[in-house]
Amino acid sequence: MNKIKAYGTESHKDDLKEMTIERRDVLENDVKIDILYCGVCHSDIHAAKNDWGNSKYPLVPGHEIVGKVVEVGSAVKDYKEGDIVGVGCMVDSCQECQPCENDLEQFCEKGMVGTYNGKNKHTGKQTFGGYSTTVTVREEFVLKVPTNLDTKAVAPLLCAGITTYSPLNHWNVKKGDKVGVVGLGGLGHMGIKFAHAMGAETIMITTSPDKAKDAKRLGADDVIISKNEDEMKKHKNSFDFILNTVPVKHDINPYLNLLKIDATMCMVGAIEPLEPMNGGNLIMGRKRVAGSLIGGIKETQEMLDFCGEHNITSDIEMIDMQDINTAFERVTDSDVKYRFVIDMDSLK
Amino acid sequence: MNKIKAYGTESHKDDLKEMTIERRDVLENDVKIDILYCGVCHSDIHAAKNDWGNSKYPLVPGHEIVGKVVEVGSAVKDYKEGDIVGVGCMVDSCQECQPCENDLEQFCEKGMVGTYNGKNKHTGKQTFGGYSTTVTVREEFVLKVPTNLDTKAVAPLLCAGITTYSPLNHWNVKKGDKVGVVGLGGLGHMGIKFAHAMGAETIMITTSPDKAKDAKRLGADDVIISKNEDEMKKHKNSFDFILNTVPVKHDINPYLNLLKIDATMCMVGAIEPLEPMNGGNLIMGRKRVAGSLIGGIKETQEMLDFCGEHNITSDIEMIDMQDINTAFERVTDSDVKYRFVIDMDSLK
Repeated sequence: MNKIKAYGTESHKDDLKEMTIERRDVLENDVKIDILYCGVCHSDIHAAKNDWGNSKYPLVPGHEIVGKVVEVGSAVKDYKEGDIVGVGCMVDSCQECQPCENDLEQFCEKGMVGTYNGKNKHTGKQTFGGYSTTVTVREEFVLKVPTNLDTKAVAPLLCAGITTYSPLNHWNVKKGDKVGVVGLGGLGHMGIKFAHAMGAETIMITTSPDKAKDAKRLGADDVIISKNEDEMKKHKNSFDFILNTVPVKHDINPYLNLLKIDATMCMVGAIEPLEPMNGGNLIMGRKRVAGSLIGGIKETQEMLDFCGEHNITSDIEMIDMQDINTAFERVTDSDVKYRFVIDMDSLK
Repeated sequence: MNKIKAYGTESHKDDLKEMTIERRDVLENDVKIDILYCGVCHSDIHAAKNDWGNSKYPLVPGHEIVGKVVEVGSAVKDYKEGDIVGVGCMVDSCQECQPCENDLEQFCEKGMVGTYNGKNKHTGKQTFGGYSTTVTVREEFVLKVPTNLDTKAVAPLLCAGITTYSPLNHWNVKKGDKVGVVGLGGLGHMGIKFAHAMGAETIMITTSPDKAKDAKRLGADDVIISKNEDEMKKHKNSFDFILNTVPVKHDINPYLNLLKIDATMCMVGAIEPLEPMNGGNLIMGRKRVAGSLIGGIKETQEMLDFCGEHNITSDIEMIDMQDINTAFERVTDSDVKYRFVIDMDSLK
């Protein structure tokens, strides 16, 4: 085992602070990564504060990791020292069940191993995330980062990127489609970039008129202010697909009215009970509401390659590791455009 | 115009009683039908009592009509005097919009014309339903009834039948699939028959243990009592499709847990706000909730032909027209197995 520096918390009440954690020695299928950058995801805050009731402490967040390979196990084929690589929300799965065989490791029947707050299969101990100087991950869960992209701004692609790319890709968004993105935050800003790059007429749907300008800069063709009933009425039954990134309880009925016959709204943000959905809004028009969770490893690599081709990265604000508690407050207040990324040099 | 006998109501507070209504003269594309039987749908009660706030009076319910052709217009090609035919929930639509062109007249952009409580395109007056001695309908909305079936028991197929057949057909239910039907009433009992005939492993999901025996008689391979948490847990993540026929507000979360990855639950009963749905139940497993409304005319004919092939009809209890108010009470109390059908001879 190797002792390394990390930033984490001993309890849901505490701020994050510097601590020492252990990483396993490099096994034959492992890739050891020197972490360069780590994105700050809203889930990191939920986990640190035990909002979902399943946090184990000490807890070291971070699942939007970009780094440099510094060592590989004897059986590793696809990576070598010096490669720039990424690690997302998962670091292991059974690799044998139907979902794993179908490249949907996020739905592994035995449970995927989270990058943090999961159970390390090799040590039996806790997994610790990317708010740290190094991480050791089995080869199958390491991603190649396209060399033409700004490495810092790639980090958020590993969670916010794949979470929005996957449903747009799965529901086959393409040129000629009219696609709505609800909510303009870490997820929503990536949703706009992807839908636009896939060739869709991309419409930002937001409660805040002051987000219109930025939405257009990011690639939206138009903006609907969802509080404006006339505007919502004008777009009734016209959307081929809606990506709903709102991370909290809300009323989805007005968005269902925007869908065409047989069209789908996919939820990627809110994992809690929503406001009561009106059954009639699904029945009239054979409409659908679905959900989507990150994406499998194969699709995550496809997403990174797509970003390389289309020169897509996240809009980021860099911070030092020591600024993390302020960053958490600002994320909670939606005061970031659109993702904080930690420069891990600050911890070394 | 022709004056005929009907049963209807002048206000949402009154019982139904005999009245005289007018039917249009037969136009060149019209088929005039002597009504033999009419099913009693729960919607008839909602309409009579103005539960949905859109009823116009006088109101004559009935949209599960079977009868004999007694006259056809000069341009009618597919029907002749003496044919046994059906009429369902629609008697007209624009026939030009995208949904109409796609055989989804129920979603006609200009609004389909309901068999009752709609606006007759030819007279500009109210449409009156099948609780009457005759009806005149444009050819495109008349269905052929397979001659091998018990005509009385065909009537409910025109609404309860197509409402359940359409989603099972649209989501491609087939041999090898595990299909759940939630709720055992007029819709649910047809759902079981269809899913079974399509070759699926058909599971009745109900709150009432006393419905188990009947569900199996109707074609269910097994029954899950949804209040039994252990049973629900045993079937977690195992269903390819669930047809939810519950007609009132309820909690759909337990059923979402039963779906496989990427599987759909389709709602055909409840058009009101449901209990809060947990977004996480969709996100974990990329699951879907959809709705479906009756079915288009082409699919309704396919359904009737399917019934002819597989010898499927509704389980019915015959009543005279004069018994309708008692029948309404019994439908409201779920005291019918599984559909009342009016013998229209009683009104003639």
